[in-house]
Amino acid sequence: MSEASKLGQIKALCFDVFGTVVDWRTTVINELQLFGSEQAINADWSEFADRWRTEGYMGGMRLVQQGSLPFQTADALHHRMLTILLEEIEFDTKKNIAAVKHLNTVWHRLQPWPDSVLGLERLRSHFIVSTLSNGNISLLTNMAKYSNLRWDVILSAEITGAFKPNPECYRNAANLLGFDANEIMLVAAHESDLLAAQAVGFGTAYVFRPTEYGIDNKKAIRPDLPFDFIANDFSHLAELLAVPKVD
Amino acid sequence: MSEASKLGQIKALCFDVFGTVVDWRTTVINELQLFGSEQAINADWSEFADRWRTEGYMGGMRLVQQGSLPFQTADALHHRMLTILLEEIEFDTKKNIAAVKHLNTVWHRLQPWPDSVLGLERLRSHFIVSTLSNGNISLLTNMAKYSNLRWDVILSAEITGAFKPNPECYRNAANLLGFDANEIMLVAAHESDLLAAQAVGFGTAYVFRPTEYGIDNKKAIRPDLPFDFIANDFSHLAELLAVPKVD
Repeated sequence: MSEASKLGQIKALCFDVFGTVVDWRTTVINELQLFGSEQAINADWSEFADRWRTEGYMGGMRLVQQGSLPFQTADALHHRMLTILLEEIEFDTKKNIAAVKHLNTVWHRLQPWPDSVLGLERLRSHFIVSTLSNGNISLLTNMAKYSNLRWDVILSAEITGAFKPNPECYRNAANLLGFDANEIMLVAAHESDLLAAQAVGFGTAYVFRPTEYGIDNKKAIRPDLPFDFIANDFSHLAELLAVPKVD
Repeated sequence: MSEASKLGQIKALCFDVFGTVVDWRTTVINELQLFGSEQAINADWSEFADRWRTEGYMGGMRLVQQGSLPFQTADALHHRMLTILLEEIEFDTKKNIAAVKHLNTVWHRLQPWPDSVLGLERLRSHFIVSTLSNGNISLLTNMAKYSNLRWDVILSAEITGAFKPNPECYRNAANLLGFDANEIMLVAAHESDLLAAQAVGFGTAYVFRPTEYGIDNKKAIRPDLPFDFIANDFSHLAELLAVPKVD
């Protein structure tokens, strides 16, 4: 099918959020540094952030997928790993329950990439725009309010009780939106997410976020995979999807 | 507990939608009249609308609650009754599948009460504002987009798989929003909904919508029940909740 005819049937855009819409790493490192100076503790906060993300969140989701952990929210997975990481640097998490709980919600306060807010607004003028994230509903709701990201609806793995890339997540999103899979396009900066969405019949838009893992860990190349659209950012995606600028 | 201290702990407002936020009856009657003239059929469209609502939707939900029907979306319950009502007036629903399907989505295009859009915007500046409706997610999403109702998040009985006033609906909303029940207030024009929310610990705000069932069927009196707030409309509710006007 040509790009033009594929585009004609798309009614909703579902967005991956962490890394695609928001720059989790910069926000988390900044807030960890602040926490460190408030609590008078030192650590390599960049490494702390990366381990929190990869071992805690992504590793936690793998344990859930393998059946070693019951399904739980991103908040719970984050809290589990945050406790481990803070205890490694000899911070007493039991005596500082409120501070740890507040720090854990940094994932509710992530800053968008510079193009995200306006790009979403532009895309929202032509499509239903929805989250489709492994983050939980309250995390995504608070983040949207905090960062002024305007979604038409917030969908999450929490509703399905299974994390992406489980195909049920994508199918359930289509069901809740009232569309066939081929009327929806996933927008994401991650190939595995897009491949899973493609496998259930979604359109796919890869957005290039080269500094998601930091300026020193740039993703070197664009994907050599059969996605429908490849965009540099949300404003470029809007151009590719022929959506005029919003006044 | 005093009103002031009760108010201090409220973080989110959950809104009933049909009748509370939108004037379903006026919109549905108008669209039925249009459908009638397009299809050259006649009926008492006011009575048709009332039966669609009371026998089809509310009656259908009762059947689900009694276990006579499996849980299904509001769209499905509406479609079931619309087919019955159209066949009663000898309209061939099998020959007009697309027209019937479009008419069934009139519930996605309901017009807000005059104060709803601005009142919600004002309340949203101080609280998380959410739907908590028996309407399905796509219905509520399309309605919000169509009528410019800005929600922070769309919650529905569809996520729980049980209709209000089942207590699980309210508990699940609290869980998804990440708040305790006493941090949430239900806003509704219907006493039974508010009583069920109150029973699980929500705060309650009754909004007076006297013409929900038409100008000739005005609800005569305000409820003599122990709700936390009683408001004439959303702008009055914002005043009672001490939320300043939005610029």
